[in-house]
Amino acid sequence: MSKKLLPRVNRISKLFQPLNIVPKDSKPRDEASSKSYKLMVDMGIIRQSSNGMYNLLPLGLRALEKLNTLVDDEMANIDAQKVLLPHLIPSTLWKATGRLEVAENELFMLHDRHQKQYILSPTHEEAVTSLIASVSPLSKKMLPIKLYQISSKWRDEMKPRLGVLRGREFIMKDLYTFDADLDKAKETYDLVCKAYDNLFQKIGVEFVKVAADTGIIGGSFSNEYHYVSNIGETVVVSCTSCNYFATTEIHNKSSCPQCQRELCHNTSVEVGHTFLLGTKYSEPLKATYTANGKPVPLVMGCFGLGLTRILGAALEILSSDEELRWPRPLVPYNVCVMPPKNGSKEASASRYADDIYQVIEQSGIDVILDDRTHFTIGKRMIDARRTGYPYIVVVGKRSTEPRPMFEIHDLYEDKRLDLSFEGVIDYLRTTNDDQTTRYEMNEVRYKSN
Amino acid sequence: MSKKLLPRVNRISKLFQPLNIVPKDSKPRDEASSKSYKLMVDMGIIRQSSNGMYNLLPLGLRALEKLNTLVDDEMANIDAQKVLLPHLIPSTLWKATGRLEVAENELFMLHDRHQKQYILSPTHEEAVTSLIASVSPLSKKMLPIKLYQISSKWRDEMKPRLGVLRGREFIMKDLYTFDADLDKAKETYDLVCKAYDNLFQKIGVEFVKVAADTGIIGGSFSNEYHYVSNIGETVVVSCTSCNYFATTEIHNKSSCPQCQRELCHNTSVEVGHTFLLGTKYSEPLKATYTANGKPVPLVMGCFGLGLTRILGAALEILSSDEELRWPRPLVPYNVCVMPPKNGSKEASASRYADDIYQVIEQSGIDVILDDRTHFTIGKRMIDARRTGYPYIVVVGKRSTEPRPMFEIHDLYEDKRLDLSFEGVIDYLRTTNDDQTTRYEMNEVRYKSN
Repeated sequence: MSKKLLPRVNRISKLFQPLNIVPKDSKPRDEASSKSYKLMVDMGIIRQSSNGMYNLLPLGLRALEKLNTLVDDEMANIDAQKVLLPHLIPSTLWKATGRLEVAENELFMLHDRHQKQYILSPTHEEAVTSLIASVSPLSKKMLPIKLYQISSKWRDEMKPRLGVLRGREFIMKDLYTFDADLDKAKETYDLVCKAYDNLFQKIGVEFVKVAADTGIIGGSFSNEYHYVSNIGETVVVSCTSCNYFATTEIHNKSSCPQCQRELCHNTSVEVGHTFLLGTKYSEPLKATYTANGKPVPLVMGCFGLGLTRILGAALEILSSDEELRWPRPLVPYNVCVMPPKNGSKEASASRYADDIYQVIEQSGIDVILDDRTHFTIGKRMIDARRTGYPYIVVVGKRSTEPRPMFEIHDLYEDKRLDLSFEGVIDYLRTTNDDQTTRYEMNEVRYKSN
Repeated sequence: MSKKLLPRVNRISKLFQPLNIVPKDSKPRDEASSKSYKLMVDMGIIRQSSNGMYNLLPLGLRALEKLNTLVDDEMANIDAQKVLLPHLIPSTLWKATGRLEVAENELFMLHDRHQKQYILSPTHEEAVTSLIASVSPLSKKMLPIKLYQISSKWRDEMKPRLGVLRGREFIMKDLYTFDADLDKAKETYDLVCKAYDNLFQKIGVEFVKVAADTGIIGGSFSNEYHYVSNIGETVVVSCTSCNYFATTEIHNKSSCPQCQRELCHNTSVEVGHTFLLGTKYSEPLKATYTANGKPVPLVMGCFGLGLTRILGAALEILSSDEELRWPRPLVPYNVCVMPPKNGSKEASASRYADDIYQVIEQSGIDVILDDRTHFTIGKRMIDARRTGYPYIVVVGKRSTEPRPMFEIHDLYEDKRLDLSFEGVIDYLRTTNDDQTTRYEMNEVRYKSN
């Protein structure tokens, strides 16, 4: 939207990435009960501010913003409109729908100076329905309406745990749809689920979509998206022969209800939840459209994605105990370029690092320069591998040869190559092109039901 | 960051833009006490959710996101790092700096289920200082640190007014800097102010930068950025002969303290505020770096921009009583293309609208199609002018001539032209290129002091 006027270089020396030096013989910290959470703190991706609340540091926010862009892209494809609703919601709205009593324990609530009570929103069904009600009755021509936002949400969890996986303040993407009748609403529901399927395929972490319980949100039916992981708090059952998937809240038996074969049980993390709501909110709050001259309640759907949780869960699934690994489209920087150490024999070749940086950057690939040249390549390489930059280019010993050669460390393929300048650029361009096409080819092993 | 896989068309029929039809003889509404606020509500840019809180609808959020992009751009130029801090802040932090008592009346506060008190943040000095303290003492090599965020803020105003100009929940951009000593902090302060000057020049609305009072934020000195407008709540004094500018809180006399000439007084809206804080926060909260083996408090600066307020104030200044006008870089869509009415004589030429749309879109210009072809051109033209799309292309009567001609309505230049297909494209490309270069040439009449 605006032009870059100055050449800029992303430099690790300027990056705010406080690294925790953990003594080798230290005991595992209590709160750090998952490997990804430990690594996210140690590598300066997030940092706790208070119980269940986390600062997103530059690398963490950068990954989140890439996820936001993927979401915006999928939403534009289905003509969903982005809005931003206030986070404080009059509690009278929640009284009107009967949710205040049910959810009270987990709500953050406050009174303003005029003694009016507000809820710090965990979800926006009432708020968005009240917005639509304020312009009701709508003309049928305006339907379907699909409004979404990406914003902070709150839940006063009794026991927050695992960093951003179960925090008390977190980032959600929530979408609300309004249709004329149940058939249309079901069409919209399927369209949105298709967009969510696409999104999860692009992220590239294996997911499973299951039949789910509607819980206190309510409505006629519901699906959940899960990442299978041993740190999960829910259990999903799946049947490999007939593609039946459900949460144990829906189906708690060991045999499949469709084909009677034995079911697999997997612990998993819920990362998305979709509901066909019907008129549970539109009726009490009077969100309507005109049919035959009369106002008729709109039929709603709602669709949530836990964005910070997707990030945390994906990192948990992809990382090793020692090194972070990111979903390809969410990695903060794709390439880390490393000039030689100051005063080393190769120091004279350090201009190659700048040149490689520039050419990669001009190819539209996200790159960062590790210009902390007071550190050895070895020390910086450990940091880069732990941070999880998938491609690390080192201007090392062979950079002073008559035909200079550079190291590429490819963390996804787990290999190292020595390549010429052109070879480096080609390699990075090719792997990056692959990445984009790979989204489309990426097969989802667990099919949706 | 990701490729568009499908051709997409932005269509007004899909846009959620509830238009208020205001009866001609209606009295002005009480809450609508400024022309821009009335227009923003009538044209579906924002909509009130409760006292002093506003839903940003798709067009409003789109403008805000363009402003965010401008901010991100300027911040990248000065190596500032984007973060996101939790909105809930333990009130103990505010007790430690002595601000809790001073600000209490305007704070939204709550208790969690463990009876711990939190503030819904109006500003993040304590929170960010506590983050830095958690990784203190820093090495001097890490300085300066510049962290910023774009996020919601809250202030429990006694009397919210004028829509997003003085709301209780609003979007701020806040930047915090950390330096080794006062001289370095002053250098950083000047660097950031330069970036803010650039930003305000790009937005293009005439601004004035004045000496200001440090108020309850504190610190050694402070500047404010103001938009001159009769709906403003502050008064700035300026001397045209010696370029002295100040708020009346700083200088409340009629003559200039530098040259004794008479001062001009103008009501204005404060849109930015910068502070050289010193160690007011870093000392009690122990944000330090190591000098001579000892921890020394960091010298801080803080820099706020009221993003939703900038948007509201700019619209107030640029709009007429009847029609919205946006700052060029913030307009939700630059071009609105209008195909003929269904069933009209020109209906056969409607393919030109699609073609024009596609070519403009491929030129990287933000465009929207007013495909509500059940409405006349006249009706849609009124909506487009009131919404403030600066370039409106109409496929009208002359589109069926042997050499088809199209109307361009240029709202900035207040003129209408009849041009060929190529002429339309050229005109739009040229004005859009101009727009980018105009940023750089844009003179700021009120110089900073």
